[in-house]
Amino acid sequence: MSDFDSQIMQVLEGYKAAVLAKDVDAFIKLYDQDVRVFDAWGTWSYQGAAAWRQIVQQWFASLGEESVAVSMEDVHVTGAKDMAVISAMVTYAGISSTGERVRAMQNRLTWAMSRMGDSWGIVHEHTSAPIDFDDLKAILERN
Amino acid sequence: MSDFDSQIMQVLEGYKAAVLAKDVDAFIKLYDQDVRVFDAWGTWSYQGAAAWRQIVQQWFASLGEESVAVSMEDVHVTGAKDMAVISAMVTYAGISSTGERVRAMQNRLTWAMSRMGDSWGIVHEHTSAPIDFDDLKAILERN
Repeated sequence: MSDFDSQIMQVLEGYKAAVLAKDVDAFIKLYDQDVRVFDAWGTWSYQGAAAWRQIVQQWFASLGEESVAVSMEDVHVTGAKDMAVISAMVTYAGISSTGERVRAMQNRLTWAMSRMGDSWGIVHEHTSAPIDFDDLKAILERN
Repeated sequence: MSDFDSQIMQVLEGYKAAVLAKDVDAFIKLYDQDVRVFDAWGTWSYQGAAAWRQIVQQWFASLGEESVAVSMEDVHVTGAKDMAVISAMVTYAGISSTGERVRAMQNRLTWAMSRMGDSWGIVHEHTSAPIDFDDLKAILERN
């Protein structure tokens, strides 16, 4: 695996680990200070890591005893020098305190990342689910 | 305006012009052959310009006498050398044959673009609307 690939992998693995541990600090470190987030839920856009941090904090706090296992499929990576773009299908699985998978939801994920020395920071995140034409509801399972 | 900025602007203006003219050829020329599209509507992912072309053709055909005026706000551009990422709020306004604005819908738009000589091709597109927590419906107006 090239340096580039392994650095990108570090961000993906860092994201999964931070969500599973509900570790807000580790999570937000993956992002650039000026990140622009188009999140799947409720709000059009968040500007800056401080605004995004608040939402992540609320998300982790809302989980109670549960935790969330993130997995990614169909990961495409483009770029190399100073900028990279990742697109993927993400599954967020709710895990009970006894280790059971109690629910799961899928999203499309796009990350634009900028090189910061030897590592990469997310400068733009876009997550979503496709919208059903007929009832305008989000489709949250890929089946 | 730098060469970079004006080249990026060309893609934005090319997109608006192709949609307004319902010109499938001009539209699809903006995209890389291997483009991956996460479209707001119905389907999780389209792979390749040929698959995307079919959807665009259906979209334009479905408009009948109407046309669609695209406008973009809050456009952020990052990158420079071989890769650029654009994020923006897009309004798609339906215009009647007599020139009246009959409806409008908003989307978040992300484009990853690769340099192809003197121009740029879209290698990844992600459009979406945020999902309301309570009824799981897409929010299609930003107000």
